[in-house]
Amino acid sequence: MRLRNMKNKSEILNHCSFLVLNGKNYKGHWCDYFNNSNEIRIEIGMGKGKFLLEEAINHPEINFIGIDRFDNVLARAILKIDKPLANLCILRCNAIELNEYFDHEVGLIYLNFSDPWPRDRHSKRRLSSPSFLKVYESIFIDKYQIKMKTDNRKLFEYSILSFTNDNYKIEELSLDLHKDDYHMPITEYEENFMRKDYPIYYVFVSK
Amino acid sequence: MRLRNMKNKSEILNHCSFLVLNGKNYKGHWCDYFNNSNEIRIEIGMGKGKFLLEEAINHPEINFIGIDRFDNVLARAILKIDKPLANLCILRCNAIELNEYFDHEVGLIYLNFSDPWPRDRHSKRRLSSPSFLKVYESIFIDKYQIKMKTDNRKLFEYSILSFTNDNYKIEELSLDLHKDDYHMPITEYEENFMRKDYPIYYVFVSK
Repeated sequence: MRLRNMKNKSEILNHCSFLVLNGKNYKGHWCDYFNNSNEIRIEIGMGKGKFLLEEAINHPEINFIGIDRFDNVLARAILKIDKPLANLCILRCNAIELNEYFDHEVGLIYLNFSDPWPRDRHSKRRLSSPSFLKVYESIFIDKYQIKMKTDNRKLFEYSILSFTNDNYKIEELSLDLHKDDYHMPITEYEENFMRKDYPIYYVFVSK
Repeated sequence: MRLRNMKNKSEILNHCSFLVLNGKNYKGHWCDYFNNSNEIRIEIGMGKGKFLLEEAINHPEINFIGIDRFDNVLARAILKIDKPLANLCILRCNAIELNEYFDHEVGLIYLNFSDPWPRDRHSKRRLSSPSFLKVYESIFIDKYQIKMKTDNRKLFEYSILSFTNDNYKIEELSLDLHKDDYHMPITEYEENFMRKDYPIYYVFVSK
């Protein structure tokens, strides 16, 4: 998610206690950061942070890490989260380098309204492309689990094929999420789509 | 597809040269019926026959068999097809008994706008349920191929899970078929949905 430039973003980032600056140092032992051995889940492309904040509040028994590579996005998420939670931190990281930050310690990846990169020649940049799935392999702890939701039909079709071609099994599928009974936080971006009554696509895959 | 009762259906069926009455006799050697060894494709639940008629006209190098268990449906399809084609016949058969009619000789199954059987307790009756997939195994020649289209979201979600759980690979997927570039005949039922601009779901799976 790209957002307008924030003039005071450096100040916000510099004063945030739950922004992890030295993330590579925790590779292989994020349990030390959280001071427990609870499950770790990450959201790649955390947007304004509403989804992850609600998940963290609802599930204190799980550790959540919000990931983005843009300072503008991170700064907005920091303002949204506002107060530190013991089970939530954020990390500036390019997703293609996730294997430099994690070593078989992530239980689940959320991909919410990821950039669809609509042109075929950019398909490798999609967060569900084979090259990203390859990166995720080295960060998952044992069972690989990905939950994706998007309003973008072509990205969703592409992702379903990419996941299943990589032998992921479909655990849950909805082609109109808000008409079904899957309970999960709604992102800011998603709220706009709900007003327009467009379908949200959702899939949970594992292997 | 259930249709109004046709008073003259018996007469139509009795005078049709391309309705196969002794289908079980051709089990294992449908090539004798068609007098060639071309690929055989079947449509289970052929409705009014428009889809299969167009496929047969467009692909004289492939043999097509339309299947239904209701005389009303068969009679209407016969009226639609009108003139015999060398590569098209119809067969009265209950899909759960397909293994009594075919023995490893079908190249592809079409499931167009199948009955969704919306209640969970009827899920076994869906043509994409594990029990039907089991029946299909004994009729496919080598590669298993199924093409499904439907307007019914819940049936489609169920089918995707059923296919992939049974190790079918997704070859093609569209969540809004008429906005994409897959070229195939449109059924009578589908035409009504197109007018309403509802999405048609389509998947091609193989294993």
